[in-house]
Amino acid sequence: MVTNETSRNPPRVIIERVQPEIDAGRHPAKRVVGDSVEVSADIYKDGHDVLGARVVHRPVEESTWHAAEMAYDRDEDRWSATFVVDRVGDWEFRVEAWADPFATWRRGLSKKLDAKLDVASELLEGATLVAAAAKRARGSDRTDLRVVAERLAQTDVPQAERVALALEDPLATRMAGLRDRRHDTKYDRTLTIVVDRERARFAAWYEMFPRSQSREEGRHGTLADAEQRLPEISALGFDVVYLPPIHPIGEHFRKGPNNDPRGAPDAVGSPWAIGSAVGCHKSVHPKLGTIEDFDRFVATAERHGLEVALDFALQCSPDHPWVKEHPEWFFVRPDGTIAYAENPPKKYQDIVPINFWTDDRQALWDACKDIVDFWIAHGVKTFRVDNPHTKPFAFWEWLIGEVKKDHPGVVFLSEAFTRPKPMKGLAKIGFSQSYTYFTWRNSAHELEEYLTELTHTEMAEYFRGNLFTNTPDILHEYLQRGGRPAFLVRHLLAATLSPLYGIYSGYELCENAALRLGSEEYLDSEKYEIRTRDWNAPGNINAEIRLVNRIRHENPALQHPRNLTFHLSENEQILFYRRSAPRNELLIAVNLNPFRAEETMVHVPLHEIGLPDDASYVVEDLLTGARYAWHGARNYVRLDPTSNQVGHVLRLAEPALEAA
Amino acid sequence: MVTNETSRNPPRVIIERVQPEIDAGRHPAKRVVGDSVEVSADIYKDGHDVLGARVVHRPVEESTWHAAEMAYDRDEDRWSATFVVDRVGDWEFRVEAWADPFATWRRGLSKKLDAKLDVASELLEGATLVAAAAKRARGSDRTDLRVVAERLAQTDVPQAERVALALEDPLATRMAGLRDRRHDTKYDRTLTIVVDRERARFAAWYEMFPRSQSREEGRHGTLADAEQRLPEISALGFDVVYLPPIHPIGEHFRKGPNNDPRGAPDAVGSPWAIGSAVGCHKSVHPKLGTIEDFDRFVATAERHGLEVALDFALQCSPDHPWVKEHPEWFFVRPDGTIAYAENPPKKYQDIVPINFWTDDRQALWDACKDIVDFWIAHGVKTFRVDNPHTKPFAFWEWLIGEVKKDHPGVVFLSEAFTRPKPMKGLAKIGFSQSYTYFTWRNSAHELEEYLTELTHTEMAEYFRGNLFTNTPDILHEYLQRGGRPAFLVRHLLAATLSPLYGIYSGYELCENAALRLGSEEYLDSEKYEIRTRDWNAPGNINAEIRLVNRIRHENPALQHPRNLTFHLSENEQILFYRRSAPRNELLIAVNLNPFRAEETMVHVPLHEIGLPDDASYVVEDLLTGARYAWHGARNYVRLDPTSNQVGHVLRLAEPALEAA
Repeated sequence: MVTNETSRNPPRVIIERVQPEIDAGRHPAKRVVGDSVEVSADIYKDGHDVLGARVVHRPVEESTWHAAEMAYDRDEDRWSATFVVDRVGDWEFRVEAWADPFATWRRGLSKKLDAKLDVASELLEGATLVAAAAKRARGSDRTDLRVVAERLAQTDVPQAERVALALEDPLATRMAGLRDRRHDTKYDRTLTIVVDRERARFAAWYEMFPRSQSREEGRHGTLADAEQRLPEISALGFDVVYLPPIHPIGEHFRKGPNNDPRGAPDAVGSPWAIGSAVGCHKSVHPKLGTIEDFDRFVATAERHGLEVALDFALQCSPDHPWVKEHPEWFFVRPDGTIAYAENPPKKYQDIVPINFWTDDRQALWDACKDIVDFWIAHGVKTFRVDNPHTKPFAFWEWLIGEVKKDHPGVVFLSEAFTRPKPMKGLAKIGFSQSYTYFTWRNSAHELEEYLTELTHTEMAEYFRGNLFTNTPDILHEYLQRGGRPAFLVRHLLAATLSPLYGIYSGYELCENAALRLGSEEYLDSEKYEIRTRDWNAPGNINAEIRLVNRIRHENPALQHPRNLTFHLSENEQILFYRRSAPRNELLIAVNLNPFRAEETMVHVPLHEIGLPDDASYVVEDLLTGARYAWHGARNYVRLDPTSNQVGHVLRLAEPALEAA
Repeated sequence: MVTNETSRNPPRVIIERVQPEIDAGRHPAKRVVGDSVEVSADIYKDGHDVLGARVVHRPVEESTWHAAEMAYDRDEDRWSATFVVDRVGDWEFRVEAWADPFATWRRGLSKKLDAKLDVASELLEGATLVAAAAKRARGSDRTDLRVVAERLAQTDVPQAERVALALEDPLATRMAGLRDRRHDTKYDRTLTIVVDRERARFAAWYEMFPRSQSREEGRHGTLADAEQRLPEISALGFDVVYLPPIHPIGEHFRKGPNNDPRGAPDAVGSPWAIGSAVGCHKSVHPKLGTIEDFDRFVATAERHGLEVALDFALQCSPDHPWVKEHPEWFFVRPDGTIAYAENPPKKYQDIVPINFWTDDRQALWDACKDIVDFWIAHGVKTFRVDNPHTKPFAFWEWLIGEVKKDHPGVVFLSEAFTRPKPMKGLAKIGFSQSYTYFTWRNSAHELEEYLTELTHTEMAEYFRGNLFTNTPDILHEYLQRGGRPAFLVRHLLAATLSPLYGIYSGYELCENAALRLGSEEYLDSEKYEIRTRDWNAPGNINAEIRLVNRIRHENPALQHPRNLTFHLSENEQILFYRRSAPRNELLIAVNLNPFRAEETMVHVPLHEIGLPDDASYVVEDLLTGARYAWHGARNYVRLDPTSNQVGHVLRLAEPALEAA
């Protein structure tokens, strides 16, 4: 019972509502290297003692704690301290608080002096406190404090002299350091923080199917072909190149073009139907090349400042070696066959799901981890995980935790499109990044509401949204109907609303042909066939992508998630928001209407920026170089997609910032 | 590390955000006997299994758990169940969830049948599930299920027949009951609820100084005098009569009238300066009478349906026996004297504070508990605790916990007026009721904001505000200036905004003389002298108090705290709110302006009540008996304090409710 608990070792100070704390400390908050972590708490005590508090913190593998003193905010009645996480990996922190007898005594002494009261007794009490501290002290401190204690108690020395001695600041500092810590109160829980590489938070992703990268119509592309494209992808300003599964593809039940279950002669099959006689999750599809080709691909990518992200899809084709070697890892039907995936009436016979709760669970889970370790050994530091919400959350928490023990820098992106709670749950149990609902948020209201949730609620502590404009599964109606301007709009939004975003190749060519009306599937999807393209085909938006990615790299304001705020635009077709970093103020306006020009008055949050109501200032459009003289909060904006202008990325010119 | 934890026994279902849960289960929620507790949680799992969940609950001293199945709300993606706490004391509950293989299988079977697919294999899988359940079953279940399993597997029996058997509801029910529970997931924490007597939530308090109850001017009143008054206090409709300390008062440094530190000849002293040569916290002040007189007082109170609340003030006069017997329980100064209370330049020499962290802490804490036990033995079930925020929170948590082990029905009222967080903290660690900021909330906006916080935030789970109109320390300017109407207004507000409220005697006589301008202290305060009064003096509001208290007892809507909602009144001088219970709809309008008549249009929340927009309905003013025919949402109200009408307590007439 609580009562016994407290009667054994009663807390003398109350510590509550510590932040960041997710689900009572069950899950860690997320940061990247170099971030400063602000820890805050409600701390109070009975009576009127002077309180002190601190946050102790350390990387978990370190033995020594470091301390940051907490400061008190009277308006909020809240304590807080900040510390920097300067290393990748798991960190932990704890809040401690105490009443400070010497500081309390010192304040009381001053009060009595102000009230012109005799302090003879106070001085003797102070002497006792100092003498006690001396016992705890070492070396010169010890002797010095003994002397102070004796002096304070010397009634034959004038009070004024002893008071002066008692109130010396160095004495206060010394006494604080020698505080008797036996009665310090520790918060119930030690909390954790996962610190990732900077790229876990700031990166532009480019997804491409290697088999589509040959320049000759019809020829199956290779990793070597894909390698050829790395320089231009890098030149476009992307940071991560993501490859769908590159493993051998099952022979049985291969789907034909456009997901035709009847298959087709020489169908290439879906890369997500992994495994065949020639290999498994740890093999490279023979037609793509060899593991050496892959190593070369990774090396070339690195030379061009690109990181390679690999797909991690835990499912098998019926031909996967595991099916023969470990039938117990699957769902065996009474007739002895292995169950394939299905959602009646739909059948996915090219895929057999894994039974993660098989009796021999540990062997299976270890085998899954082996796959990750294998590709890490080949230079992969980022994994895009396919449908994690269809595998046990406990499995992911275990796998990510185990992998990060040896490789804390590894990044896992959760490709889950499901209800909000499971999506959040996956982020909580360890995924570094998550796909989002961004593709389905197209109106100003939808975008403001959703991005505000991502960046200004508890989600911001653990959920890093990676805003994809499109995926092989999602070609939104907005893109299908809006033409080239729509592609510019959605790219500009993704790239400036979030430090993490991505496109799936073909986007730069404004490919917008859907399988059929009302479908988000691509026509002739690369999931089932090879698509060779002219990457510089007319109408492409390469130049725009390159520019926006450069702006992202040049402006710190676009590299952090939490500095996003939305502001009034008098025309709901134009979304207006601010991204802010020290000396880097961006005001962004995007015309969400791909069909025609829109104009509006936008309201600049002058006070938040630190400008007076009547400020005159210059904003420069980083997209065009144009400079505008703005005055006060309310300013005019006109954006015409038909003349290629879907948005402004306005940087506040330096002088204004200096004025601020 | 979390990963090891989960790898040992991984949860298969996620259970999050359980409510009610206060500070991660550190503190219990509060209820009274007969309440139903709604427990809700986020529950989800990977994949698409059919889930089940339940709340198991019990009084802590019971060994067996009772279960309440949780239901799923698709819109909220939230699970919930309700159970009734039918006994005073500590309760605990836990949420459990699981995936249901048979239900999942059954749904899959139906899907396939709908899709006209062959289910031969499904039937065999079903047979296996049923056979496994048979092993877990007992008696006839066991044999029956064996038969079902065999039948399902009989390939020579037509599929249609076996399908019919498989889909029988009784089978589903049986299988649910025989579920393999080994993999059920339990929520991390078992949570607690403190269940109090109904009176802890619904009561009208009356505070009086026994020494002022003699009817002869100047004579020191006795408990016998006070006893005389119980019938009329009961007739006024009060439920609790609260006495400031009735113990011997210290002789030294007695304050004179109006807190004069120089004292006065035959000063009676402050009842809160407890203890003298003649007795301690467990004694009755000789001038008030004997412990037998007190027992008689309690008995008479009970006969009149009144409960006696005693003041519990843990501080001593310098003459308190403890000071001699246990100087170590106080703060001893270097000169050997006991430190008195002071807040420079103020001195409170008639009081010496207790050192709750003395080395001999347990002896002191036990001695404090002895005081409570002593008065409980004399029939006291309610304690009003003086300044709890100046004593250790850990002490109160211990004391209240220990007392409630033997006397779970005892009620503790926290008299703390301090910052919001410590006030909440005291409620969390065990106080049944709390004083509030009500006296300082006088405008419509202040009242709506504060009462909404009390009744519609997490506070409602643990903080029971007792709205006092006045106390011996607080005579608000509103009462000082507003005259009789002000007293009617504040009484009506307190009594109808909260099931718990109280007045300090003299209020019914509209006593409003302050010590001086700008002070909230009473002139000639009873804290320092005896005040004899004519309780039926002209201008008294006894009739109004009696009526309002009767209305409280007759209307369930006024007996629960969470059913309060505020609604639009077009004149901010008139506060308009609703109190609602089954078949008991109250609409209350109060004119906050004590000086003149105000009129307004109030907006009745027809939809919430269940009436159509164009409803015609009758409301009856329970204060006057007047009936008004109202139509639609917007209706006219005029309240004239100068003609004694400060508010309406409108009850929706039955027909309208039946229509609803």
